[in-house]
Amino acid sequence: MEGKYDFGLVGLGVMGRNFILNVADNGFSAFGHDLDPEKVKALKEEGGHEASVNASTSIKTFVQALKQPRKIMLLVPAGKIVDSVIESLLTHIDKGDIIIDGGNSFFTDTDRREAYLQGRGINFFGAGVSGGAKGARLGPSIMPGGSKSAYAHIKPIFEAVAAKYNGEPCVAYLGPKSSGNYVKMVHNGIEYGLMQLTSEVYDLLRKAGKFSNAELHDTFTKWNEGRLQSFLIEITSKIFKQKDDLDPGKGDLLDQILDKAKQKGTGKWTSQNAMDLGIPVPSIDIAVSMREISALKAERTAAEQLYDKPEVEVLDKAGLEKMAEEALYFSFIITYAQGLHQLADASKEYDYNLNIATIAKIWRAGCIIRAGLLADISEAFEENPDLPNLLVSPHFVEKVKGSVASARSLVAHAAKNGIPLPGLTNSLTYFDAYTASRLPLNLIQAQRDYFGSHTYERLDQEGIFHTEWE
Amino acid sequence: MEGKYDFGLVGLGVMGRNFILNVADNGFSAFGHDLDPEKVKALKEEGGHEASVNASTSIKTFVQALKQPRKIMLLVPAGKIVDSVIESLLTHIDKGDIIIDGGNSFFTDTDRREAYLQGRGINFFGAGVSGGAKGARLGPSIMPGGSKSAYAHIKPIFEAVAAKYNGEPCVAYLGPKSSGNYVKMVHNGIEYGLMQLTSEVYDLLRKAGKFSNAELHDTFTKWNEGRLQSFLIEITSKIFKQKDDLDPGKGDLLDQILDKAKQKGTGKWTSQNAMDLGIPVPSIDIAVSMREISALKAERTAAEQLYDKPEVEVLDKAGLEKMAEEALYFSFIITYAQGLHQLADASKEYDYNLNIATIAKIWRAGCIIRAGLLADISEAFEENPDLPNLLVSPHFVEKVKGSVASARSLVAHAAKNGIPLPGLTNSLTYFDAYTASRLPLNLIQAQRDYFGSHTYERLDQEGIFHTEWE
Repeated sequence: MEGKYDFGLVGLGVMGRNFILNVADNGFSAFGHDLDPEKVKALKEEGGHEASVNASTSIKTFVQALKQPRKIMLLVPAGKIVDSVIESLLTHIDKGDIIIDGGNSFFTDTDRREAYLQGRGINFFGAGVSGGAKGARLGPSIMPGGSKSAYAHIKPIFEAVAAKYNGEPCVAYLGPKSSGNYVKMVHNGIEYGLMQLTSEVYDLLRKAGKFSNAELHDTFTKWNEGRLQSFLIEITSKIFKQKDDLDPGKGDLLDQILDKAKQKGTGKWTSQNAMDLGIPVPSIDIAVSMREISALKAERTAAEQLYDKPEVEVLDKAGLEKMAEEALYFSFIITYAQGLHQLADASKEYDYNLNIATIAKIWRAGCIIRAGLLADISEAFEENPDLPNLLVSPHFVEKVKGSVASARSLVAHAAKNGIPLPGLTNSLTYFDAYTASRLPLNLIQAQRDYFGSHTYERLDQEGIFHTEWE
Repeated sequence: MEGKYDFGLVGLGVMGRNFILNVADNGFSAFGHDLDPEKVKALKEEGGHEASVNASTSIKTFVQALKQPRKIMLLVPAGKIVDSVIESLLTHIDKGDIIIDGGNSFFTDTDRREAYLQGRGINFFGAGVSGGAKGARLGPSIMPGGSKSAYAHIKPIFEAVAAKYNGEPCVAYLGPKSSGNYVKMVHNGIEYGLMQLTSEVYDLLRKAGKFSNAELHDTFTKWNEGRLQSFLIEITSKIFKQKDDLDPGKGDLLDQILDKAKQKGTGKWTSQNAMDLGIPVPSIDIAVSMREISALKAERTAAEQLYDKPEVEVLDKAGLEKMAEEALYFSFIITYAQGLHQLADASKEYDYNLNIATIAKIWRAGCIIRAGLLADISEAFEENPDLPNLLVSPHFVEKVKGSVASARSLVAHAAKNGIPLPGLTNSLTYFDAYTASRLPLNLIQAQRDYFGSHTYERLDQEGIFHTEWE
């Protein structure tokens, strides 16, 4: 079997196994490697004919099984394990071979690894993969960055396995170095934002509209047939219908799930790096904060005892549903706008030379943030690749104008009624600040000059000024 | 003059010069060093008798002039210059000498430097200094962290020069390693939050109450005599009265200041590190974001052309002023609560063993965030050093209950009227989320389990669960 297989994959967890089966389904032979014999066995059993899918616990056997230049993808947890897998591979592979890190590695780690491997004649890709276990099996969105010339070797396989949107594969060469990892990181930051917004609207409909889970299912199903159509809205509609499998007497599963949301770091990294770039992404920042607050369940429960909540004024169901759809649409747009703004800036800062339209296109199917909106977004950036912000695109001005009023009403209603809608409010205040030629931060500059002689600029003339304040 | 001076200071910018003069005023002789002969000359001229204040461009002369163990403070820009000054000192100083970094160094840099110098027998302190140029001259708040035993040598000088609150010096040994730098970093994060909130209330009073600068001056002056009493409210009241010194025909200076607020990094670091700790500080995060948005003046100006702002509904002046005072008081409390929450968690994470009551006490005078509120805060933490959050302190529950309603009304009014109050809204949504035993993030956990098999916990029983979603 030496030199026989088209594609190699290290890490046969659910994502890795599914990705290999997907590769094989598309006519490429694939060989897997994992140190766990159970996982190797499971893949071989599931993979059918061993000429198509095979696996070994021996890294030497694994490497020898692959055609040159070898195309070896890693689907292992981000961190030190990536480095150690790379080290074990280095003993066996040859110059010109290709290693693809498919995990959520931090982008500076990818840059370091790429430089290290380049020195050894090995091509390295950071290629974010989105779509979860099902996406890996049936077609994910793949975001590869690395050596442009080496991409030709992996392109046919990636294009075959990726999700398709109107026949176009949801994968493209994105840029050099860590660009693929970076794009995936921001994808996940946007994902955090959209999930937070969805959870807020769920809360609002329940508290201010007394929607039952069955009604929420209907509402989200209907929304998913309109302009909110997206993977997250679709699965949310299904979640509302899921019965408690553990204790059927308890009714709907969602009501039994603990409200402590975990995070694996990509949302946090998006926010932290946006701050390094100086790009505002408050709809993502607040989603990170809310996961943190959610983790403080015991503190929250104790604090609740000390404060009376306002009695919630219940609104008309149909009116609330309509406003919620508009507010969610509005805040989804704002969240994409912020994430794409960050990508455009990172592209300059890190010399990625990203094409935002291409990124929006490969997000149209396969990935977690896939949504009907992305077709509009890709058109907006195709028309103007240097669009500073989605909010100023002719494709979006009317959409935003038509939906912002409901965001205003619901933010106001929630503030008065003690329902926290932090993602929605941050989306609205971002909009109001981004569309204001004059903000009150002249006062902050005055304060800074007052106490720290930090100087200020003026509206009426160029220069740097300092005042001896009285 | 060898071995004659009590205190040495490197970096004779405005902060350094003022700090030295402060030291001399308090009966300690001080010697300064700067490579710039102009600065050395200026200090000597201003310092009076050379037995009390002296300076040299020669680092050797400088070091030799100091009594052993030498106490050498650096007031130089954070970054590589600190390392290079340390290197030049190392050639001349002796074991047991003390170097104090008084700048806003990033706390991990301080840890690195402390370990490095400890290996050479030198004591190192990171000591944040707050109070601006005037504070350095007349009494700053000083936040030292480092070797407890070496602190005895610098304590008399620091206690003499620090601001006094009811006779108590605003300086204390805070803890080991970078604890002093860390506390100063969070101090600055809180400062960002309070400044943002103040600027928002200025905007609101102007737009929704048609307050003139003269009226704003009166309002802030009155507020500064009440429970909002604080340095920032005080200087803001004065800022409203400042006439344009450059072009007197233009009236009030504030109206001519460009609304692009700069930042030097400490607020950003506070937010980024809070995310690493997993502690929510959204009122600080949004202050960082707003400085970023403010910098996008050209983008904002272009975006404003595309959108109509709602016509602002003007409110009764007296009623609005009262609500604004309450909302500002509420959101100031929330901002301190978030910053102190971060400090308490960092204390565990980094083994600082911080005493939050002590920190609140040394912030009561001298520093930029000094405020009447800090007396209440120090009492709250003296009574319960393990207070998880200011919001659950018996000292604060009634204060918050009495002011939150106005925050609700103003957030609602601003949302409807297109006035961005992002700091105020983030303070309110933080409050509403922190005091909610049940948040809708059960939906986020359901979504994560749906698409990524990330598992979830349940309300009704222990364990980790996964569902095969339909």
